Amino acid sequence: MAEFIYGHWAVMETLRAGRRTIEQLLVAENAEEKGMTAQIIEEARARGVKVQRSPRRILDDLASGGNHQSTVLRAGPYPYVDTEDILSLAQQRGEKPFILILDLLKDPQNVGVLLRVAESVGVHGVLIQERRSVDISPTVVNASSGAVEYLLVAQVSNLVSAMKDLKSQDVWMVGLEADPSIPPIDKTDLNIALGLVLGSEGEGMRRLVRDTCDLMLSLPMRGHLASLNVATAGSIALYAAWQARGWQGWKK
Amino acid sequence: MAEFIYGHWAVMETLRAGRRTIEQLLVAENAEEKGMTAQIIEEARARGVKVQRSPRRILDDLASGGNHQSTVLRAGPYPYVDTEDILSLAQQRGEKPFILILDLLKDPQNVGVLLRVAESVGVHGVLIQERRSVDISPTVVNASSGAVEYLLVAQVSNLVSAMKDLKSQDVWMVGLEADPSIPPIDKTDLNIALGLVLGSEGEGMRRLVRDTCDLMLSLPMRGHLASLNVATAGSIALYAAWQARGWQGWKK
Repeated sequence: MAEFIYGHWAVMETLRAGRRTIEQLLVAENAEEKGMTAQIIEEARARGVKVQRSPRRILDDLASGGNHQSTVLRAGPYPYVDTEDILSLAQQRGEKPFILILDLLKDPQNVGVLLRVAESVGVHGVLIQERRSVDISPTVVNASSGAVEYLLVAQVSNLVSAMKDLKSQDVWMVGLEADPSIPPIDKTDLNIALGLVLGSEGEGMRRLVRDTCDLMLSLPMRGHLASLNVATAGSIALYAAWQARGWQGWKK
Repeated sequence: MAEFIYGHWAVMETLRAGRRTIEQLLVAENAEEKGMTAQIIEEARARGVKVQRSPRRILDDLASGGNHQSTVLRAGPYPYVDTEDILSLAQQRGEKPFILILDLLKDPQNVGVLLRVAESVGVHGVLIQERRSVDISPTVVNASSGAVEYLLVAQVSNLVSAMKDLKSQDVWMVGLEADPSIPPIDKTDLNIALGLVLGSEGEGMRRLVRDTCDLMLSLPMRGHLASLNVATAGSIALYAAWQARGWQGWKK
């Protein structure tokens, strides 16, 4: 089934990444061909994608009210991978696995922000559960500024089984929680084969997911609030883990 | 002029922080008195704040379309402070100054996220420029989950002058940029009297602001995207700085 990717960066990176089948680029009838809109049209033409001018209200509908910025891409489904593909990428790069594991996150904005950061620190892939969790919808693509188009994401039917499977392949499962009774993120060497596990907004990790973790780390807090948003906390932890790897692969 | 604070956590923390004059709590007519709504009503009553049931559309208007979650607080203006108050707080706590400096940020969501993190790591205060920058609007209060009600925020008429003034008081101005030609955040000891300077979305720091910095640090990136959102990048830098201070003041 076709998906409708909307927003400048989401559309541009989907074109550039080239992992989906692309059916058509829709551009709002009254949009001027300049700036990012012009660059997107050029990118589409260079890739042989048909460019179609359409009434703005059609784009509004296709983007389900999202801020499409005059461009919508009609594309094939998101190209999910298997967990094995993620491990292969690590091996291919000659790096210890670095995997992000999301337990039932519900908010596409949070997931988009996290996946943008995950792509920026070079995680080899992301695991999300197939049901009761967000999938990589156009809203997530948009919230990630298109970063997910470059990421390997595996949808697994049972997150706990997938974690156990990774453990059997010597990947450590490290859970993040805002609990001052557990050690802070800088007290463990994160330069290991790592699966960083984040719980959902509000409820945190499910008990079985937490029990499957090899160790738990916390993000310290002072001040009056009880916790940070999961996207913020996860972003900080992803950077802490990459810093522990000595910024391996930093594009200079 | 009255401001209308909306959303569960924004309303609750504004009541608890007790820094504004509070005129009234408006609760949507049809909202059940349970969960957070009940807790907010209780908090208001305990503080002698009048609770008024109102038609939902009135709350919709007062929140300017924001997600008010059935509660709106009619309150006095945000209690801005002076830069000196921020330095006094550092002195009072016996800590090296830790200040966040925002150069013309425009997006209230970004500013809200940053201020929530700033409060969580114990910054002594935040400087923003009075004009051409967001102010601490109800949208910012909401996006910060109410954290700004506990923070010291100074609105200054000229950011560069304020930075120079802090420099003359031995506070280091450290700018954050996504530039691989400058050293990464972990290559400088951030356990110093610190003013962390963030540029605006898109344009980054103004030249004069950048020139006023004592040093620049970068957040490393790999992958395909050119930069992170300023709220994400700033949050990571704030945590790096607090980590350098050995999680000083961590609430255990």
